[in-house]
Amino acid sequence: MLSSLAFAQEKLELDAVYKIKNEGKTNSQVEDLSFHLTDFLGPRLSGSTNLRNAREWTAEKFKEWGLQNVRIDSYGEFGRGWDVKKSYIAMKAPYYAQIIGYPKAWTEGTAGFIDSEVVLVEVNKAEDLEKYKGQLRGKAVMVAQAPVSLTPGFDPQARRFTDEQLEALKMVNLGVFRGRYTPAQLEAMRAQRALDAQLSSLLLEEGVALKITGTRGSFGTVFHTRAGSFSTDKKPTLPEMEIAMEHFGRMQRLLQNGKEVRIEAEIQVEWLDDDYKGYNVLADFPGTDRALKEEIVMIGGHLDSWHAGTGANDNAAGVVVMMEAMRILKAIGFQPKRTIRIALWGEEEQGLFGSRGYVEKYVANRSTKEKKAEWDKISAYYNIDNGSGKIRGIYLEGDDQLVPIFQKWFTPFHEMGANTVTTRNTGSTDHVAFQAVGVPGFQFIQDPIDYGIGYHTNMDLYERMQMPDMQQAAIIVAAMVYHTAQRDEKLPRKPW
Amino acid sequence: MLSSLAFAQEKLELDAVYKIKNEGKTNSQVEDLSFHLTDFLGPRLSGSTNLRNAREWTAEKFKEWGLQNVRIDSYGEFGRGWDVKKSYIAMKAPYYAQIIGYPKAWTEGTAGFIDSEVVLVEVNKAEDLEKYKGQLRGKAVMVAQAPVSLTPGFDPQARRFTDEQLEALKMVNLGVFRGRYTPAQLEAMRAQRALDAQLSSLLLEEGVALKITGTRGSFGTVFHTRAGSFSTDKKPTLPEMEIAMEHFGRMQRLLQNGKEVRIEAEIQVEWLDDDYKGYNVLADFPGTDRALKEEIVMIGGHLDSWHAGTGANDNAAGVVVMMEAMRILKAIGFQPKRTIRIALWGEEEQGLFGSRGYVEKYVANRSTKEKKAEWDKISAYYNIDNGSGKIRGIYLEGDDQLVPIFQKWFTPFHEMGANTVTTRNTGSTDHVAFQAVGVPGFQFIQDPIDYGIGYHTNMDLYERMQMPDMQQAAIIVAAMVYHTAQRDEKLPRKPW
Repeated sequence: MLSSLAFAQEKLELDAVYKIKNEGKTNSQVEDLSFHLTDFLGPRLSGSTNLRNAREWTAEKFKEWGLQNVRIDSYGEFGRGWDVKKSYIAMKAPYYAQIIGYPKAWTEGTAGFIDSEVVLVEVNKAEDLEKYKGQLRGKAVMVAQAPVSLTPGFDPQARRFTDEQLEALKMVNLGVFRGRYTPAQLEAMRAQRALDAQLSSLLLEEGVALKITGTRGSFGTVFHTRAGSFSTDKKPTLPEMEIAMEHFGRMQRLLQNGKEVRIEAEIQVEWLDDDYKGYNVLADFPGTDRALKEEIVMIGGHLDSWHAGTGANDNAAGVVVMMEAMRILKAIGFQPKRTIRIALWGEEEQGLFGSRGYVEKYVANRSTKEKKAEWDKISAYYNIDNGSGKIRGIYLEGDDQLVPIFQKWFTPFHEMGANTVTTRNTGSTDHVAFQAVGVPGFQFIQDPIDYGIGYHTNMDLYERMQMPDMQQAAIIVAAMVYHTAQRDEKLPRKPW
Repeated sequence: MLSSLAFAQEKLELDAVYKIKNEGKTNSQVEDLSFHLTDFLGPRLSGSTNLRNAREWTAEKFKEWGLQNVRIDSYGEFGRGWDVKKSYIAMKAPYYAQIIGYPKAWTEGTAGFIDSEVVLVEVNKAEDLEKYKGQLRGKAVMVAQAPVSLTPGFDPQARRFTDEQLEALKMVNLGVFRGRYTPAQLEAMRAQRALDAQLSSLLLEEGVALKITGTRGSFGTVFHTRAGSFSTDKKPTLPEMEIAMEHFGRMQRLLQNGKEVRIEAEIQVEWLDDDYKGYNVLADFPGTDRALKEEIVMIGGHLDSWHAGTGANDNAAGVVVMMEAMRILKAIGFQPKRTIRIALWGEEEQGLFGSRGYVEKYVANRSTKEKKAEWDKISAYYNIDNGSGKIRGIYLEGDDQLVPIFQKWFTPFHEMGANTVTTRNTGSTDHVAFQAVGVPGFQFIQDPIDYGIGYHTNMDLYERMQMPDMQQAAIIVAAMVYHTAQRDEKLPRKPW
């Protein structure tokens, strides 16, 4: 009864929705923004030169659009920047063959051009370390990995949610019973970690020329991660490359069969030690209602990415959609009651640093529960970080009060495939920083286009971005923001 | 009635089938052969050093197994060998980014290490050529390609035939009506070809440092082809690399948007001019029946491959299956009535040169219809060249007489999924050379595992090979050969 009542009362401004749809369809900037953020600005690793450039470029764009209070705002210290200046690796024996591989983030470059046999290091117990002492200086080293058996691609890489899957998304999982580890298992895990640490120290002490690691991915798609450190204590790391699993597998099989393997390689990196701070890009579309203009509706996505692709689906797509939503709202001559703020977060990939830093600085401390100036003012924070797939609905993070509101707001978008309002939680991205302090923060449900294979890989490039989907998403975000900005009350909150 | 009669009379030797299955399952060499052919011997481009090594290695293996008359047999002239010694390309501006790319086969290396801006050449009519004259010396050049819009991977890369698809395969297509080109269309095509030729000449005359071309494929998989020439007239070619379409797309979009793009690159190649002959590897398992031992059952597959992967599915898989079938027949103590011959063909990828050369030398001339010594002797030729997917049946190339025979021979393999006997033709590989002179030549129906993406790409590597499928295929081939070798009569033939 209450739900139906709320639903009936919730306002839906269809004139505005019409204008938003029209602007988003006819004057879309999605393609141009995507080109600049990916092709032109390149990968935007936390702290890198490219990320600095991307902050400047997006801030300029906001100014150009007439947003106010545009600022590149430091949330605190992040650490060292790191740029790749050269990256080459190939097998030289038993025959010449190029290798698809990338330096692990924040690892050292090689000592110039190296030409080396490859040693396969197989360590199962501490005594195994002994035989490698004094043997590895100047050598390329592969630590043995489990035999690889890549399954062929019987499953498609991209999919859209089916009606059944969307229905299922509305059901909340109450968790799965997980068995506990036995003491023996825990002990084995501890022992393995200790052995791994000993091995890492050994490789560093020995002065290995290059560590070569196989990664997830196949068919030329290489997932990439961090092996080095952006910490300002400048802890030494090895030069390390992660390479296509097939190329790793080939060398490992050759070595295990007693064949000689040689590689040649060169990695050059540059460390940026001139500014250790981390930043967010912020811009406002000021509110005009005397009573409500101090209140804020926030939208955002993270601007940083991993380093071997151009962070297209993760997360240029989210940035583009949010920028475009902001542009649409401005273009239709909207006079928002509440202030609308866009935030492009830094260093999400290293642990939501940007959004958590913002929340800590302006909203509330999640440990002490100390509230700051904006805690009371933010009605909602909307996030995009699930790629360029279109919006199918929204995750309401356990708050049943919100269901009838969003059901109403989504009604003009059923025709665009957005129809699913679930109280489920979804994790792992910047809305979590707001939820953690009791401020409504939401990630949309998006079609998982190329999600499994595109994220954190060398192939997360412009071609992965679905332009019509992003148009749709920008239109829907703009409408959600519109209604949130004009609503009589801030969105209701869960207890905190 | 006749068909049923033939079916009833056709012999099925189930003791032999049992032994073949048992040997193929328990002592399979499929994995070891695959390792050596792909990882160890590497890509086996026509005329290359690796192909030479592969001929030696497979011949040694045949001798080791006790086959007779092992020979590396020249079928005539092929052309120049070509090996890649170094291959590197990266974008340097607007930022550093590695590029996945490979030299096109039989193209020149670069003049050392090059560091160059990239010029996008856009030519739609002859006058457009003028503006590039005198502008391209020492530059890297990209010829504009249609805007790329790679669809996401909604379809799986690998599949197995369904029952419905196999049923459909039994139906013969009587061809599709194709409309003819209009005179205007033909003229436009001629004009385009002429313009392309003019452009190629211009790039060569100008002394372009490197031509960069985008290829089919996505997600890091790069298809590769031939741009240069293996012809012994040593016609000059440009250094040319074909690169991942996403990486090409990025540079093209940057250039079209007026941004500066620079690359650095180095290609070293080595030409082999010491032996222009092409070769097949042949080995016999001699027949023992006084009346039939001069007759031959042949099996084979092509040993050569393209150059950026290791030719795993295309066609180390076929070579492995045929070698393993031969090994199984030898291992079970078989005393064949007819001689069984294995042929590993050279230069299939350049136009079935090896198998056609063999046929021309020993079997018959397809133009003059002159018959040679073996025309009358070969009962059948069986081929594998559709990857490492298991055998589902056989294509009988329009010969209805063969249907009941193969239906009978396949009966013990229904349990392994091989059940489909179709009179359809299948094209494009070495059995065609035998069919062309009226000798029964067959390619099996195989599951198209990774077929679409694995062939002629940098990712056609060991990991693509389905070992259990290849075990199955070797067992079935061995049984087919067994029955063909022991049959009272040679297989019936179509009129020629």
